[in-house]
Amino acid sequence: MRGLYWDGESLHFIEQTKLPHSEEVIVTRDWRVIVDAIKRLAIRGAPAIGVAAAFACVLAWREDENQKAWNDKLELIESARPTAVNLSYAVRRIRETMQAGDEEDCDANITSEAEKIAIEDDAMCESIAKHGIQLFKPGTRVLTHCNTGALVTYGIGTALGIIQHAWQTKNIEQVYACEARPLGQGSRLTMWELGKLGIPATLLTDSASGRLMQDGKIDCVILGADRIAANGDTANKVGTFILATLASRFEIPFYVAAPSTTFDLNISSGQNIEIEYRDADEVRNCYTHQASPKDVNVYNPAFDITPAELITAIIREDGVFYPPYDFTERST
Amino acid sequence: MRGLYWDGESLHFIEQTKLPHSEEVIVTRDWRVIVDAIKRLAIRGAPAIGVAAAFACVLAWREDENQKAWNDKLELIESARPTAVNLSYAVRRIRETMQAGDEEDCDANITSEAEKIAIEDDAMCESIAKHGIQLFKPGTRVLTHCNTGALVTYGIGTALGIIQHAWQTKNIEQVYACEARPLGQGSRLTMWELGKLGIPATLLTDSASGRLMQDGKIDCVILGADRIAANGDTANKVGTFILATLASRFEIPFYVAAPSTTFDLNISSGQNIEIEYRDADEVRNCYTHQASPKDVNVYNPAFDITPAELITAIIREDGVFYPPYDFTERST
Repeated sequence: MRGLYWDGESLHFIEQTKLPHSEEVIVTRDWRVIVDAIKRLAIRGAPAIGVAAAFACVLAWREDENQKAWNDKLELIESARPTAVNLSYAVRRIRETMQAGDEEDCDANITSEAEKIAIEDDAMCESIAKHGIQLFKPGTRVLTHCNTGALVTYGIGTALGIIQHAWQTKNIEQVYACEARPLGQGSRLTMWELGKLGIPATLLTDSASGRLMQDGKIDCVILGADRIAANGDTANKVGTFILATLASRFEIPFYVAAPSTTFDLNISSGQNIEIEYRDADEVRNCYTHQASPKDVNVYNPAFDITPAELITAIIREDGVFYPPYDFTERST
Repeated sequence: MRGLYWDGESLHFIEQTKLPHSEEVIVTRDWRVIVDAIKRLAIRGAPAIGVAAAFACVLAWREDENQKAWNDKLELIESARPTAVNLSYAVRRIRETMQAGDEEDCDANITSEAEKIAIEDDAMCESIAKHGIQLFKPGTRVLTHCNTGALVTYGIGTALGIIQHAWQTKNIEQVYACEARPLGQGSRLTMWELGKLGIPATLLTDSASGRLMQDGKIDCVILGADRIAANGDTANKVGTFILATLASRFEIPFYVAAPSTTFDLNISSGQNIEIEYRDADEVRNCYTHQASPKDVNVYNPAFDITPAELITAIIREDGVFYPPYDFTERST
């Protein structure tokens, strides 16, 4: 299963806003359609956004092969999402490739660079999975949170990629996924991906994770990261810190899987990671249904910080790391 | 504000299924309407169900004052909800009052007994609040879970009753309420009650409670209980155990408020409390919106168990209790 696919001429992507109700693949040669998809969250997840943006740059060039117009288009592509690091990184690589190459080979050069970005992402996922499966043994029942699979990368994903490999090597008995209110990346997307992969999966509310552990139903927790500080403190989807706190109480291993690009070594600890607080209506409503009195005050952090001390191991494409974490010496 | 009110001839109740979208008070002299309301969860919460059932018994008698027909009706009232202890307790009291009293004074006797059940419930709430406010000091920011106020009792409620008194005595700065997925008793009902009372309140997803404590935004947690074992282990709305675990980590006081009728002294510890697992569709859907792929497996416990060691104090109508808890010697 692929959330994104480049066939040499068109980008194919799953229209994520329609999941899980309908499974629609958009095939486009129009860079504007890709920019719009990134804006609409039809393509989401930092690595996937980067790869999609790279191909948008290629398609923008092919439109009329005009340098000045292309530069303007690149600015529009780059601003599709305000804080996506992978997006600006990908656009910069394509722009630099164009500048460094022969004028006659423009198309070939930037296409090759975009494909390289995609291939690197795919390989990153495979490397993370290869390292991660060492932590699984037959019969593992694993709890995950948010969405970390094929929909957010050009490959099999990070935490969900490990789960997929562990399933293929017969080390997974059951995957439990929290719904991840307010936006339901667990219920809508992860449950859909696990279903497509044929992996036995069970959905629970975010409140039920404590009882799940009391019931003795899980052997480990594995999930992704949005940003990791030099000391291993991890910002991830709100609720992650709760799962880590519970796992620690029950002495259940708690694993974080993330590419080295997720690490921000300028940040010494989690206290310095800024947390995004999102719109109140996400919580006032459950999708289309008004769930609370109108206009109530809402506290809606998108992320929380899991202190490194609660993380049993961090899995990257270059290996498995154990505490005490110190990523300052390690190149990313 | 009253969720339930008896005017001597009719029972008034808030149609809870329509909250928070519309505020509808049903006024009825028909016991069948009350039974139906209990079945539909339009009247819910163990104490409120007990009081409503007692008045249903009175109204059933007034319908035709026929002993045989009345006994049949009492059976229908008693079976409105399968496991509600307060319901069968209330019906039993009314039946015994009828049996013990003069035939000529039937109506007066059972009406007086039903009113006594209501008054006792109201007084229980006031006593809990009186003891509970001792634990609050000016500026307290409190987190609560599920719904424990006027909608579930004949009075001001348990945990929410304490919050109301603490607000009136200027000891509350802000109340935070978790939404309590899947049924949203926090977002739909508690936020509505707090709004009616004019108490400053903020809604959060169940996942955001960890970040709320990281942010240093709360001073204590207070909530209710569905059942408490002799050793203080507490079964309550799923997610309660998570809040207790987090509170312990942040050294934030964690309080449980419940009437003595909630205690089951035949149960020595939480391990012996049976947990209800509810329908999968509650989690697959967010109200009317399909939130996950159809037919996914779901783990949906209604409650979890908070070990007594995580509970700073338990507030009952007869006082505030601290660990080590031993309720075996105490009459309920």
